[in-house]
Amino acid sequence: MTKAAIFPAPESKAESEEGTVFAPRFDAEGLVPVVATSAKTGEVLMLAYMNEEALARTIETGEAHYWSRSRGRLWRKGDESGNSQRVVEMRTDCDQDAIWLKVETAGAEAACHTGRKSCFYRAIPLRTAPGGGVSLSFVDAERQFDPETVYRHRDAAKGTLKSSE
Amino acid sequence: MTKAAIFPAPESKAESEEGTVFAPRFDAEGLVPVVATSAKTGEVLMLAYMNEEALARTIETGEAHYWSRSRGRLWRKGDESGNSQRVVEMRTDCDQDAIWLKVETAGAEAACHTGRKSCFYRAIPLRTAPGGGVSLSFVDAERQFDPETVYRHRDAAKGTLKSSE
Repeated sequence: MTKAAIFPAPESKAESEEGTVFAPRFDAEGLVPVVATSAKTGEVLMLAYMNEEALARTIETGEAHYWSRSRGRLWRKGDESGNSQRVVEMRTDCDQDAIWLKVETAGAEAACHTGRKSCFYRAIPLRTAPGGGVSLSFVDAERQFDPETVYRHRDAAKGTLKSSE
Repeated sequence: MTKAAIFPAPESKAESEEGTVFAPRFDAEGLVPVVATSAKTGEVLMLAYMNEEALARTIETGEAHYWSRSRGRLWRKGDESGNSQRVVEMRTDCDQDAIWLKVETAGAEAACHTGRKSCFYRAIPLRTAPGGGVSLSFVDAERQFDPETVYRHRDAAKGTLKSSE
């Protein structure tokens, strides 16, 4: 049995693009990609995914909830790290299959599980031949917290050990 | 027969996160999601996808190339609309399964096929119960060009008619 849908199914292309009914389009796994940017700096912090429930909880609470694909569960951002995200503005795109969140990050102001402000801490060189191997360079990559300490403590407190994945 | 890969396969989690070898992780359809932001305003313009070839051409040329899922083909942004995207900076994220482009848009400075600057021209209300239906509101939604005119002319010039999809 299928759970009752929270959001209506998309109707026409015209409705999706020009209408005011929020009818998100989920992919084959029931997810939409979500871009979170810093409300303060505009920087892209992370790209994550929401299922229908994560989307509903984010709208309801104004706190970012995601679907963790690796752990296969709903996840309120910051539950482990303390770096929760208060949503300042939430938007959807033309065909309603992507979400943009402008957020204020609590705690260490780090969105990345590696301890950095943003997950996008490495640049790809441009106007080079990609065939011979592309070498990334670190940018804005200072750690705001030590992931070893943060995640070990939280997991220990909950009596679970975090897997290497 | 499989085409030779342009980029190496990801090795360990540690290598992906802390290494300098660009080894992107593609999804089951061979794609990575890409966030394009305006280099000028920081605004999120669009969320699109790249396959390996689109990624390679973007790196090589410094012009954004995407994979169109609806049309099933590689697509240099701006080929139809004239609104090409010069990439100012290109980054990958911690697990190398997403891309961030900071771009300068040529032409009408519109990234969206509906004629708007950004595809994210509708806001989702926050701290409301999503069950009863969520009503979107238009923000920054002025059209920079008329999509009817732009796409009809381009298609006519190429001797093809654009399908409604």
